[in-house]
Amino acid sequence: MYFDNAATTKPFEELRERFLELIYGDYFNPSSLYTAAKNVRDAINASREGLAGLLGCQKDEVYFTSCATEANNLALKGAVKRPKCRIVISAAEHASVSAVAADLKNRGAELITIPVDSGGRADVDAVIKTVNENTALVSVIHTNNETGALNDINYIAARVKSKNPQVIFHSDGVQAFLKASPPSDDVDIYTVSSHKICGPKGAGALKISKRVNLNPLILGGGQERGMRSGTENSAAAALFYDTAELYKHKYDSKKILEMQNFVIETLKDSEGIKFYASEPKITGIVSLSVSGINAETLLHMLEKDGIYIGLGSACAANKSINPVLLAMGRSKEEIFGSIRISFGLYNNLDETKILCQKILEYTDKIRRRKIAQI
Amino acid sequence: MYFDNAATTKPFEELRERFLELIYGDYFNPSSLYTAAKNVRDAINASREGLAGLLGCQKDEVYFTSCATEANNLALKGAVKRPKCRIVISAAEHASVSAVAADLKNRGAELITIPVDSGGRADVDAVIKTVNENTALVSVIHTNNETGALNDINYIAARVKSKNPQVIFHSDGVQAFLKASPPSDDVDIYTVSSHKICGPKGAGALKISKRVNLNPLILGGGQERGMRSGTENSAAAALFYDTAELYKHKYDSKKILEMQNFVIETLKDSEGIKFYASEPKITGIVSLSVSGINAETLLHMLEKDGIYIGLGSACAANKSINPVLLAMGRSKEEIFGSIRISFGLYNNLDETKILCQKILEYTDKIRRRKIAQI
Repeated sequence: MYFDNAATTKPFEELRERFLELIYGDYFNPSSLYTAAKNVRDAINASREGLAGLLGCQKDEVYFTSCATEANNLALKGAVKRPKCRIVISAAEHASVSAVAADLKNRGAELITIPVDSGGRADVDAVIKTVNENTALVSVIHTNNETGALNDINYIAARVKSKNPQVIFHSDGVQAFLKASPPSDDVDIYTVSSHKICGPKGAGALKISKRVNLNPLILGGGQERGMRSGTENSAAAALFYDTAELYKHKYDSKKILEMQNFVIETLKDSEGIKFYASEPKITGIVSLSVSGINAETLLHMLEKDGIYIGLGSACAANKSINPVLLAMGRSKEEIFGSIRISFGLYNNLDETKILCQKILEYTDKIRRRKIAQI
Repeated sequence: MYFDNAATTKPFEELRERFLELIYGDYFNPSSLYTAAKNVRDAINASREGLAGLLGCQKDEVYFTSCATEANNLALKGAVKRPKCRIVISAAEHASVSAVAADLKNRGAELITIPVDSGGRADVDAVIKTVNENTALVSVIHTNNETGALNDINYIAARVKSKNPQVIFHSDGVQAFLKASPPSDDVDIYTVSSHKICGPKGAGALKISKRVNLNPLILGGGQERGMRSGTENSAAAALFYDTAELYKHKYDSKKILEMQNFVIETLKDSEGIKFYASEPKITGIVSLSVSGINAETLLHMLEKDGIYIGLGSACAANKSINPVLLAMGRSKEEIFGSIRISFGLYNNLDETKILCQKILEYTDKIRRRKIAQI
């Protein structure tokens, strides 16, 4: 009963044979000159071409990286070439965007952080106001990691571009990919990740518009047409497109919406439970807080029953208070009691019912234990 | 008959079950808070501790990256904090060192490139002469990628440190790991790679001495104690140590030396064949040139018989003339005819005999074809 699919997903068993073939059969270095190695290059390029179709761009606008964090670092560091320029991000970015932006600020950039609403959506007018001659980069996440709330990035990008076409518009699409509309032509750089869509860890990818000339982050042998050197993680990269197609095919948004609604309907009238969902959002992520409990205690109790949930973004090794939830206006107490339920392809309504029942049972238990202690 | 083991290696079938368990069973995000995720973190840390033993350092001096190229980029970019400092590399570094050094030079650093001998060994006295108050970093590869020639990095590092203890000494140990002595305490940073020792692609690692405070290259969630953010490639990282132990156990240097000597003895008196081996070197890599032929033609003819060899470093996607071979004093014609035979755990003497026989047969064929054309 794995309800932490926004943190990572179980790789497709359906692609196990192909994955093993890529690891143990086609193990050649893609840069080697013999045909067997060229076949691996071709497999990576076929995956690139397929992803381009899903991202609405050309195949030579898709670049593989080792993960989405590296991709976001490349996007921001690679785009910012003048140290004193203005960069704009939302207050609800993933740490791989906000930490790089903070670093660029330390190196002299002017960093403007746009406030977000309780779902994590950036204030569009505030974004547009920041666009001037000196603005080099605007980065607004497509789907909030915590709530699933959507930023209308295509609309924001169009407005940014109409004010200053020189601005590079980036969006972290890790949670949105295959669930929300693909990026429009106005979105110059767009980040996706394999392990969030039932692929293996070890592959991120970027759409980088031909208009944009990024500085590479990792230099060396010139792989990925010079944009990302290093021997390719050929299995993860070559499998990325097949994974995406299968995910798209299997992703039953109606079924997921049903489970999501069941959680909301079952828990919404319970004492001290507060939901942070607000439309528009992708289906699959439910964010809530339970007052008066330590969500981590709840998490461990649920795990004993084989139920896995998330607490804020699990993509961070740093366990300090979640800055994205703070920016969304939650109090420290609410954050302390916040959980994230994120559905995947393998969940069903029966286990969702057990999840809700157990959340109610353990929440009550934790509270009564606290009262007994007083 | 895969004789390109310096480019990459076939992952161990013996660890297939464990690998699959890590991919399909323990797929959890290592940053999640439940115990199932902690088990993945523990597996990565057990691998870290094991690698520390093999690298002669402490476990909290080992950091995982996505590949050795990323690790070399982190070492150089992370170590160089003053833009105007002096950095010193050998002329036979892997592109992931030389390209970063060139980039640092473009940003204002003084770059000194140390000449190498015909095996690719750096001139030690020349290295030491470059060490002054302004020298921030010296990077000398442990084993040459093309010839297997060894730089005595522990000796060089000791001399560098005795002249200026503030200099950071880095060595790319990708080809040397488990074949040459581990780095001494004087070697501040040391790079190794999983896929060169029969592990999957997707994991590099660094020893980074506690003395050294590097700037991270990839920022975000703070994984790898802040040194490398991004969801860990948990399977590749957790498997790294088991792979290294098994490789160490199975690496039969006597058997490999026998195959290597057979190649040299069989081909050395053949017309126009020149070997570039010079002691001291690791066993397993043989570099030679065949005059008057295009080595790529030979490579493709051999592939038709299921024999795979390398041409210069296969770690580069850029197929222009190999700058390392140029620095080692080979003429363009010699480079044109250069091949690299690199032995691995799965080679045997019988196939080595076939290799030599086919090299002689096809070399003769190519030459006669050329004469016929005239």
